Amino acid sequence: MQNYMLTLCYDGSRYKGWQRQGNTEGTIQAKLETILSRLLQQPVELAASGRTDAGVHAKMQVCSFRAESARSSEELLRELRNHLPEDIGAISLEEAPPRFHARLSCRGKRYVYRIWNSEQPLVFDRRYMLRVPEKLDLEAMRKAADALCGKHDFASFCSLKPGKKSTVRELREIRVTEGGDELRLSFTGDGFLYNMVRILTGTLLEVGLGKRQPSEMSAILQSCDRTKAGPTAPAQGLFLWEVYY
Amino acid sequence: MQNYMLTLCYDGSRYKGWQRQGNTEGTIQAKLETILSRLLQQPVELAASGRTDAGVHAKMQVCSFRAESARSSEELLRELRNHLPEDIGAISLEEAPPRFHARLSCRGKRYVYRIWNSEQPLVFDRRYMLRVPEKLDLEAMRKAADALCGKHDFASFCSLKPGKKSTVRELREIRVTEGGDELRLSFTGDGFLYNMVRILTGTLLEVGLGKRQPSEMSAILQSCDRTKAGPTAPAQGLFLWEVYY
Repeated sequence: MQNYMLTLCYDGSRYKGWQRQGNTEGTIQAKLETILSRLLQQPVELAASGRTDAGVHAKMQVCSFRAESARSSEELLRELRNHLPEDIGAISLEEAPPRFHARLSCRGKRYVYRIWNSEQPLVFDRRYMLRVPEKLDLEAMRKAADALCGKHDFASFCSLKPGKKSTVRELREIRVTEGGDELRLSFTGDGFLYNMVRILTGTLLEVGLGKRQPSEMSAILQSCDRTKAGPTAPAQGLFLWEVYY
Repeated sequence: MQNYMLTLCYDGSRYKGWQRQGNTEGTIQAKLETILSRLLQQPVELAASGRTDAGVHAKMQVCSFRAESARSSEELLRELRNHLPEDIGAISLEEAPPRFHARLSCRGKRYVYRIWNSEQPLVFDRRYMLRVPEKLDLEAMRKAADALCGKHDFASFCSLKPGKKSTVRELREIRVTEGGDELRLSFTGDGFLYNMVRILTGTLLEVGLGKRQPSEMSAILQSCDRTKAGPTAPAQGLFLWEVYY
């Protein structure tokens, strides 16, 4: 069996997220597994660097799978591209070392949340940004972002009920950058909890709107209480941007 | 009656072009006239700088209309924005001098044709570009573009049968610019014939692919024969980009 590394991008708008759920057809994983299984005439199971929620996009997502194939990876990539729907793209397909696993080998990820911070119309990128027409205090957002970085228990920034699994993660960097009418929040870390980036974004937006102070961040972290953080920002502005190995 | 200048942008994907056609609902003009007539409680008729074909986008389109209104143009703009569908945006609405007319006062236009010149997937901007994965000879395209510029009879680059109206136009500039995997053809002129930019693009692409030589351009122009030029490039890559007054 050959081990493969497949690098993808996708527009998550019409999918129920990455992960296959029983027999439902609406996930990106199910869509890809169906196509690859047919192309390779054997059952193919994909492992991704991590799940993305319903409606979340990926500028770069990495998966791995094992299969027997007489075809070169270049041929397989070409055939795969011919069969993918227009909202999923195959960036590359390479033979990988036997022990490579897209999730277990992953050393970190970057997510980007795109915000249209303007009263001007958002027409062409409307599926890929959140509209926030109000003026945002970027200095306050940057201070709050700095207070959230580091190795912390992020239970307050996770939608799932606390279980036995650790909710400690290292958030290496949050960058707040402007370009024209667009604002980007970029989050780099070793791993992210369920909805973590969207709750961080919702909280930072409340800071930007003056509803919260940057000084509140450490108390929110210490509380380990989801209700103390801000709302979960909508999926449409979120991109899995880069995966590190 | 107050005269107004309305500046728009739109994603033309789901429309049958700008111009109202009888009672059909699927045009951008009909959509806007319905909304404005309801808001202003009087029949509103729009004049645009020019038509755009079915599927063509506008980063900037300018219209004018006359109406009686007790509201300020700021109020009217706010209300219009609340009623527009997500694929039409109102950039500005201003009171205009009585003699301003979006078509008759227009002094020139710029169109941009966007091409994704890569084998890499085109996922997020797939509605706004034409995919041309083959390698293109940009120097040949630039030579052909230079030969097409100037004041000429562009009958060979017009889809309508020749009638009494002049098909002479001044094409001031064609720029061929690269940025990453994207190629842009930018056309500036005093006015454009029906399908003219799309036929120019189709012809320049054939030059880029080596199917035609730049030296053929002047013979195509002189023939005044549509069949001598290249194919009409698809609508989806074309944007009305700027309108000059």
